[in-house]
Amino acid sequence: MRARKQTLKFRNRPYIISAYAIGGKKEGEGPLHDWFDECLSDDTYGENTWEKSESRMLKTAMTECMRRGGKTTEEIGAVLSGDLLNQLMSSSFMARDLQIPFLGMYGACSTMTESLMLGAVLTDGGYSDNVMIGASSHYCTAERQFRLPLEHGNQRPPSAQWTATAAGAMLLSRGIEGNSRDGSGGKERGRTKNTGTELRIDGAGNVYAQRQIRIECGTIGKVIDAGVKDSNQMGSAMAPAAVDTILTHLEETGRTLDHYDLVCTGDLGFIGKSIVRDLLEDAGVSRKMIADVYDDCGAMIYAPEQDIHSGGSGCGCSASVFAGYVYRNMKEGKIGRALIVSTGAMLSTISPFQGESIPGIAHAISLESVSGIMDRQKGCRK
Amino acid sequence: MRARKQTLKFRNRPYIISAYAIGGKKEGEGPLHDWFDECLSDDTYGENTWEKSESRMLKTAMTECMRRGGKTTEEIGAVLSGDLLNQLMSSSFMARDLQIPFLGMYGACSTMTESLMLGAVLTDGGYSDNVMIGASSHYCTAERQFRLPLEHGNQRPPSAQWTATAAGAMLLSRGIEGNSRDGSGGKERGRTKNTGTELRIDGAGNVYAQRQIRIECGTIGKVIDAGVKDSNQMGSAMAPAAVDTILTHLEETGRTLDHYDLVCTGDLGFIGKSIVRDLLEDAGVSRKMIADVYDDCGAMIYAPEQDIHSGGSGCGCSASVFAGYVYRNMKEGKIGRALIVSTGAMLSTISPFQGESIPGIAHAISLESVSGIMDRQKGCRK
Repeated sequence: MRARKQTLKFRNRPYIISAYAIGGKKEGEGPLHDWFDECLSDDTYGENTWEKSESRMLKTAMTECMRRGGKTTEEIGAVLSGDLLNQLMSSSFMARDLQIPFLGMYGACSTMTESLMLGAVLTDGGYSDNVMIGASSHYCTAERQFRLPLEHGNQRPPSAQWTATAAGAMLLSRGIEGNSRDGSGGKERGRTKNTGTELRIDGAGNVYAQRQIRIECGTIGKVIDAGVKDSNQMGSAMAPAAVDTILTHLEETGRTLDHYDLVCTGDLGFIGKSIVRDLLEDAGVSRKMIADVYDDCGAMIYAPEQDIHSGGSGCGCSASVFAGYVYRNMKEGKIGRALIVSTGAMLSTISPFQGESIPGIAHAISLESVSGIMDRQKGCRK
Repeated sequence: MRARKQTLKFRNRPYIISAYAIGGKKEGEGPLHDWFDECLSDDTYGENTWEKSESRMLKTAMTECMRRGGKTTEEIGAVLSGDLLNQLMSSSFMARDLQIPFLGMYGACSTMTESLMLGAVLTDGGYSDNVMIGASSHYCTAERQFRLPLEHGNQRPPSAQWTATAAGAMLLSRGIEGNSRDGSGGKERGRTKNTGTELRIDGAGNVYAQRQIRIECGTIGKVIDAGVKDSNQMGSAMAPAAVDTILTHLEETGRTLDHYDLVCTGDLGFIGKSIVRDLLEDAGVSRKMIADVYDDCGAMIYAPEQDIHSGGSGCGCSASVFAGYVYRNMKEGKIGRALIVSTGAMLSTISPFQGESIPGIAHAISLESVSGIMDRQKGCRK
């Protein structure tokens, strides 16, 4: 028996009462178009530097998410957020503008689930009633910081991933009393006064209760170094960390992979995703089970014909896919339980020149979609 | 009444069961020499790059702190740590080597109290039994990243601060059962089996119970932008954030400044410290009260004749002063209550070129020194 448990149980299972996902132009042209709440028509987003565009995107995601959740900035105890830019530039300036107490997170592209973990601890433990979390990335800021400025026009090897221009935000709350203006479908919306449960009425007059999304537990990951030194091989660098976290999660909870309807890693892309499949199979998970439930945001966000080589990456990749695709599918009841696992490569711009490899990290969050308390209502589905 | 409270109450008041502070060569030559647990004789620390020196310093602080607290890495639920290097290079590699679940923090030089805040939440809420927290900085890594490489030999203006080569670590625990091998004085050490309370026996044979340090509450800061654009004016950039957090803390807890024996900001240096004094006085705090209890790590860590201009800065400055000077004075009962307020300048290396100013942030942690349960023992002081 190990003395330490990496998995934290959330006794009160805090709610994600609203979410908001923004995608850039290229992301909006991809297969997840319908799952973003907003797609940019121009990646500058009206700003005169890419960094300001990214920060504005994150701020918009936060603001819209709060609006949907029916909260003002004054009701938010803290915002936990991070990005890839040095000194968390996007998040810092977002937090300056919103004037919400700020806790800066850095876990490279694992930031979304790192923030969810600590946001869940803050709300579950009763330290804050409401907490905002989020993360962002932008292709143009990341390329010039980690690789080469776009103007250089360098060729990208087939293993390279495309940093997503995207942002995602979620509003966590201990209770749902008076919340839940959020929703993502249906022609009309109603709200019962006492429970805050949202109703959706379809064309035939049937009434549905939207499901509530709760955070059930989370597994904090360790830094795992597979010895990869090529900054165009991010998927390979991060895949072992993802597998380590997933296996630890399953072991500590006594679950099998198919406990979840979806196990979704952050941004491993096509190469990293196939490494995860192999490593899980090596660990004894059946190939069918893996094929049934496992996917990766980096492999989902672009279509292969979009010329993105090995798939998407960046904090905003998993942040927007989780806040958009996963969250909304759970609201609709199409996904009951999901394990979301943002993955980060602790790629320093200096360490490779000093002979260091690129360690990876991944944190897992278990989400469950529960029916509202409107089940007995006519036409409601459970 | 404001809906939001920035101050979190820790119901179980987690213990800081051990701490460890490392200073560099210059720091060891300063007035706090005796309060560091270890001072480097050579700032390379045996490594061939400054970044590796810094990471090794942080790792040593963590390892020694765990040893003192009588814990192995397997008993630590998570390590929360950050530094100034891009992509948290020092912390990432430390966490890779120690193989403890890692949550990367970035609050610039406010990282120590940011980590303490979330570490306290994790232990207080019962999510982890033991959590390591820490932060580091190194003069040579910070200069080349934020300003100019040392080889450039540029002149520093009088308002510039000197990034401390230092690291601090603390081990937080929900209980003290079986802990507390830590201590910082006395010729001999004993330990009672049941309570873990440490005894110190002086030359005359008197037995003392060392005091326990507990985290009572914490105030999460907001990002405050005073409009400063000069990266050699860090104290001025951060002072308004420090004052905002201190005043919010006092207001929300209904306390006055002299509730504390020491209110210590992170690394404002001489200029920032004098701005804080003025701003507190403007807010109605008496000059005498400020003079009695307020100090700043950046003003304490060097003597003016050490040619450091406006004082010390860097994550490691407040981390080492809190883990060394403050912690040990509290253990000895010389400080009963302390409010420690690490302060960060969200200085991006890019944003000033884009016309942005340097926002500041500060988080406050309230520590209390409580007598052990050995008061009735012969010779123990309360």
